[in-house]
Amino acid sequence: MQEIFYFGAGPAALPGPVLAKIRQEFLDYRGSGLSVVELPHRGEAFLEIRDTAEALLRELLQVPDDYAVLFMHGGATSQFSMLPLNFLGPGRLADYVHTGHWSLKASAEAKRLADIREIHALRQGESLRIAPQHEWSLSPNATYVHYCDNETVNGIAFPGVPDVHRGLLACDMTSSILMRPLEVDRFAIIYAGTQKNLGIAGLCVVIIRKDLLDATNERVPRLYDYRRCARERSLVNTPPVFAIYVLQGMLDWVKGQGGVHAMHERSQRRSALLYQAIDASRLYTNRVADEFRSKINIPFEIQDAGLHEVFVREAEQNRLFGLRGHSSTGGIRASLYNAMPDAGVEHLVEFMCNFEAGFGASPIKR
Amino acid sequence: MQEIFYFGAGPAALPGPVLAKIRQEFLDYRGSGLSVVELPHRGEAFLEIRDTAEALLRELLQVPDDYAVLFMHGGATSQFSMLPLNFLGPGRLADYVHTGHWSLKASAEAKRLADIREIHALRQGESLRIAPQHEWSLSPNATYVHYCDNETVNGIAFPGVPDVHRGLLACDMTSSILMRPLEVDRFAIIYAGTQKNLGIAGLCVVIIRKDLLDATNERVPRLYDYRRCARERSLVNTPPVFAIYVLQGMLDWVKGQGGVHAMHERSQRRSALLYQAIDASRLYTNRVADEFRSKINIPFEIQDAGLHEVFVREAEQNRLFGLRGHSSTGGIRASLYNAMPDAGVEHLVEFMCNFEAGFGASPIKR
Repeated sequence: MQEIFYFGAGPAALPGPVLAKIRQEFLDYRGSGLSVVELPHRGEAFLEIRDTAEALLRELLQVPDDYAVLFMHGGATSQFSMLPLNFLGPGRLADYVHTGHWSLKASAEAKRLADIREIHALRQGESLRIAPQHEWSLSPNATYVHYCDNETVNGIAFPGVPDVHRGLLACDMTSSILMRPLEVDRFAIIYAGTQKNLGIAGLCVVIIRKDLLDATNERVPRLYDYRRCARERSLVNTPPVFAIYVLQGMLDWVKGQGGVHAMHERSQRRSALLYQAIDASRLYTNRVADEFRSKINIPFEIQDAGLHEVFVREAEQNRLFGLRGHSSTGGIRASLYNAMPDAGVEHLVEFMCNFEAGFGASPIKR
Repeated sequence: MQEIFYFGAGPAALPGPVLAKIRQEFLDYRGSGLSVVELPHRGEAFLEIRDTAEALLRELLQVPDDYAVLFMHGGATSQFSMLPLNFLGPGRLADYVHTGHWSLKASAEAKRLADIREIHALRQGESLRIAPQHEWSLSPNATYVHYCDNETVNGIAFPGVPDVHRGLLACDMTSSILMRPLEVDRFAIIYAGTQKNLGIAGLCVVIIRKDLLDATNERVPRLYDYRRCARERSLVNTPPVFAIYVLQGMLDWVKGQGGVHAMHERSQRRSALLYQAIDASRLYTNRVADEFRSKINIPFEIQDAGLHEVFVREAEQNRLFGLRGHSSTGGIRASLYNAMPDAGVEHLVEFMCNFEAGFGASPIKR
């Protein structure tokens, strides 16, 4: 087996020990004689997996008791529809803050299904930044305010939780969940597709304030109905058993690594290493203002765009994969989720220096 | 590892060779250095998995070219909502034929979202049967007629495809797909959750006549939109990569076993063995009329209901698991999906004889 470092934006790499454990018990889940994928979803063994996953998530993120934790089919995209279907309707409006690709996708979907207001909060001058909140002009009567904590495509992130006064905050944390401590009680709803920091594709974790469950609309499709999902403890139908099992493994691993504080410290350190390499170079450019730089998805460019493909190819020859930028932007992107070992970033930085030494003479940084 | 036979209704047992192959390549998918769960969903390796799965399904079921094959999040339950959301609305109506638990669930959901007519087609006399079609009185203007091919709870099944004249037929084949040859062109839409004969939970396969895609409603949630899913070849968002990979493995296995004709022959033989044992016994009863007996999910009762728990317990001591009947009916149920080896049914029948020899004297069959 070729040992590689994988910087893809998602589905993301999983920690080696998590994968090894899945493989190790794949044919016989704890002496049951069944594979975990064969477990009955209403049987004890799976219910314990679900409950353990929920308990671990509550512990790691210090989720207050008045919040429900739901495991739902789909991913963040399903939540783009669920939010308006559950909470909007005649006479109701929500604000959607745009800072990039994913917040735009969320509002594009909400717009199809309900009345929303779009708030363009991305500013492009010398550098890319998020507009200060006093420029947002939120609707006074918004049912909720939606934003995306960390944009994986342009690499822009909120440095903290925006203050929407008494408004309800709905947040897509697909790429950033479990990477730093969280004040859950500042949110009405947090959701995260699991294929980045929480395991594999096909599942979405939702953390929602329980009192809001009573405010959901009738006639929401069964699997999109937050209230029903909470009442049935995520067993509205056969849930994605394997994805919930992997989630449990990921949460267990994060706990063993020291929890979200340790993850945050590592994330800071690793991203600093990469940004330092970018800023110190004459070849690589990242255009996001310091304060808003994502510590998770770090895009950069080479002025001579023809070199992007060369970079990606040579990186792969050096066991560094998944570095091609998003199709909408081009360039290079390194995603540093929790599973990325420090050695991966160190190896990447070393490669970048060597690459620049080969090409650095001619191109001049903008 | 304890070797067992698992008769659960779903998630169901997978064939040993399919599980072994998943395990074998789990840490390194074909020399990529990545686990299959880490593969980028728009990368070559996964696109090949998706395309192979689609091609195998088309080959095995002889799906005509004017049908699209879709891989969607969720399961049959998501289709319960999708069908009315995509095809019903003001001035439109659908007929829902009731024959048991799952067809009732489908119509209960459709009723929440649209106008439907319920057709009660279950007849309980001496035995349980499906009413002949001339008693159904279908709506002349129904947009589609929905039914469930095989009911897993009461063990009743359609012996063939109902003739709805020129009406559009929508069928839940979650439990029966790939167990017999299929005339796909008699259907408008076929759907099947994958956790029985197609792999693991969290995915639904949809086979839909392409011309119907243009008749879908606007404002359907993104992941529930058949037209969008067809246009984007099941990549509306990050799909359940692992479930699609397992699906490919299952289809490959069925092909290697001789395809759906071989599966059908085995299914006939195995179910006959079990029904013979039931009918020949003084202890066990199945109340479904011959013609409508499911070859897949075979429920039976012991007159002294107190013996059900004893039966289940002793069966487990004999390596026979998953035999407890559905919570709504009690009793015993044996599910014989494609992955069930003949030896499993033979072993079950032998156990049933021995069990009856121990208890058969006192209870008398009704």
